[in-house]
Amino acid sequence: MHPVLLALDWGTTSLRAFLLAPDGTVLDRQRLALGILKVPDNDFAGVFRQIREYWPDARHLPALACGMIGSRQGWAEAPYCACPAGLAELAEALHGVPGEDRLWLVPGLSHRGADSLPDVMRGEETQLMGLGDGLHLLPGTHSKWARVGDGRVESFITCFTGELYGVLRDHSILGRLMAGAEPDSGAFRRGLELADREPALLRQLFSVRSLPLNGELPPKAVASYLSGLLIGTEISTALACLPAPDGPITVAGEPGLTARYREALAYRGLETAVADEDCAARGLYRIARVAGLLENNHD
Amino acid sequence: MHPVLLALDWGTTSLRAFLLAPDGTVLDRQRLALGILKVPDNDFAGVFRQIREYWPDARHLPALACGMIGSRQGWAEAPYCACPAGLAELAEALHGVPGEDRLWLVPGLSHRGADSLPDVMRGEETQLMGLGDGLHLLPGTHSKWARVGDGRVESFITCFTGELYGVLRDHSILGRLMAGAEPDSGAFRRGLELADREPALLRQLFSVRSLPLNGELPPKAVASYLSGLLIGTEISTALACLPAPDGPITVAGEPGLTARYREALAYRGLETAVADEDCAARGLYRIARVAGLLENNHD
Repeated sequence: MHPVLLALDWGTTSLRAFLLAPDGTVLDRQRLALGILKVPDNDFAGVFRQIREYWPDARHLPALACGMIGSRQGWAEAPYCACPAGLAELAEALHGVPGEDRLWLVPGLSHRGADSLPDVMRGEETQLMGLGDGLHLLPGTHSKWARVGDGRVESFITCFTGELYGVLRDHSILGRLMAGAEPDSGAFRRGLELADREPALLRQLFSVRSLPLNGELPPKAVASYLSGLLIGTEISTALACLPAPDGPITVAGEPGLTARYREALAYRGLETAVADEDCAARGLYRIARVAGLLENNHD
Repeated sequence: MHPVLLALDWGTTSLRAFLLAPDGTVLDRQRLALGILKVPDNDFAGVFRQIREYWPDARHLPALACGMIGSRQGWAEAPYCACPAGLAELAEALHGVPGEDRLWLVPGLSHRGADSLPDVMRGEETQLMGLGDGLHLLPGTHSKWARVGDGRVESFITCFTGELYGVLRDHSILGRLMAGAEPDSGAFRRGLELADREPALLRQLFSVRSLPLNGELPPKAVASYLSGLLIGTEISTALACLPAPDGPITVAGEPGLTARYREALAYRGLETAVADEDCAARGLYRIARVAGLLENNHD
C-alpha cells in the first residue's frame, strides 16, 4: 500500500513518526530523541524536514502532529478545545503551522471538573481518539484519567502522581532511605493497602520514613512502598472524581508503569486492558480522515 | 534568684540554651546557629563547654537537653519512650551522655496509630510537657499533632506538609509558576476551601499549575494557594486521625507559620491559642524537677 499520511506524536521528550496507509496501517515508523525540549535552537522545521527526507514517499504527504509541539513552548500554539470533544471537534480545530503548507497540529483539550478546577491535556486527546469509548488511564508524570462516550472525551482529570514520586525520591528526606531500590511487590502492595484504607496521604508519607527507621521496611523496598502509596491514592481520587467504570479500564503507558497501575487496579477489583501502543497513530489517522486530509493526495 | 538548671533545646538547625531559676523562671538565654547538623566535626562537647563558660554560674549546674541532640545523628542516642508517656516516664528514661557527668538527654516518643503506622517525635515531647493537657499542633517541616491528657502524651501523628511544600516549590514544575511570590490571603483561602471540599490532593495539586496557566490565579499568588491547599489537607487528615478537640488547639511554631495555621483552623471553625515561646524551657524544667535533678545542687 502507498502511504497517505505522515503522522507525528511529538511530545516533550521524544518524537514518534509514522507513515500510514489508506486504511490506517502503520507502514513504517521512526522514533527520535527530539522532544520539543531537546530540539537545538527550537529548529522544529529542520527536524520536520529531516523526517520527510527519511521517507522519500512522504515528501508531499499531508502531515498531522499531536502533543506538546502544539503548545506555547512548541512550534505553534494550537488553542485548547473544550470538552466534550471528539473527532469532529478536533478535526474542525486543526491548527496550521505558519510557513508549512501541509502540516497541521491537533489541539489539546480543556475541561472544568465538577469541583470547578480547570484541567488540560495535550497529546492524550489523540491517544483517546485511537482508543474509543470507555474509561482510560494514561499514567505518567501527570497521569490522565478520561471518560470517552459516543466518541467524545466527556471528562478527564489529571493527577500529579508521577512528578510527586520523582521529587520525593530525588529531593526529600524520603529518598535518602531508598538505598539500592529493587522492585518489591510486597511493599508495593502494602502501600496500596494503606492508601485504600483512608485518605491521609500527608500522614502516610511520613510512614515512608518511620517504617524503615523502625526496622519495619527494608531500605531497598522503600521506593516500591512509596509507589504503591501514591498510585493507590491516585486510584481513590480518580474513582471519586469520575463516573464508575462500566467495563475494563484501558491503561496506556510505558510498560513497567502500566504493569504497576494494572496491579493496583486489580487490587481494587477493577478489570483492566492494555492499550495498543500505536493508539496515537490510530488517533492521528482518524482525525486526519474526518478532517479530509486523506482526500486528493493520490497524485 | 540563683540558677539551678542549664536547659538546652538542641535541634537540627539551631540550639537554644536557658538558665533556669528554682521556680522555672528563665534568668537568661542564648540562641546559637549550632544545630546538630551545623556543629563542626560533631564536636558537641566543645559547643556544650562554650555554653557553660558563657555563664560562669552554670559551670557546675546539672544540664538537661532535648531534641535531635539525642538522636542517632546527635551526641548520644536516647531511645524512644512509647506513648502514653508523661513527666514520670520521660524522667525515668533520661539518658546520660558518656564522659559528661552532669548532662542528660530527654528521650523522644514513639507511637503506633490506629492505622498501625509507627510514628516518632524528638524534641516536641518536651514542648508538650511545657504546654500541658489538650490538643496541640507543632507545625514545621514535619508537623506534629498531639493529644495530651492527664499530663501524658496519649497519641500523635506527623504530617509531611512542610517538607512537601518545600520540594514542590523548589523542585517541581509547580515552583516555576511562582514568580515573585507575595503572601496572598485570598489565594491562601482558596486553597483552604478546595482542601475542605474533598480529599483529592493528587488532583488538586495539578490545579496549582492549571489555574495560573488558565489566567485564573496570578503567579505571585500561587505559593499562597499551594500553602492553603496543603495546610487545609493536613487539617482534614489530623481531624480524621485524632480525637476531636474539646478546647482550643494550641499552636506552637515559628510566628508566620503559626499565623497561617491559626487562620486555617479558624476557617474550619476551630478555636486556637498561641503557645508560649518558652514552652520547651518549661518542659525541660518540669522533667528535670520530676527526675530530681534540681535537688542537692545548692553547694
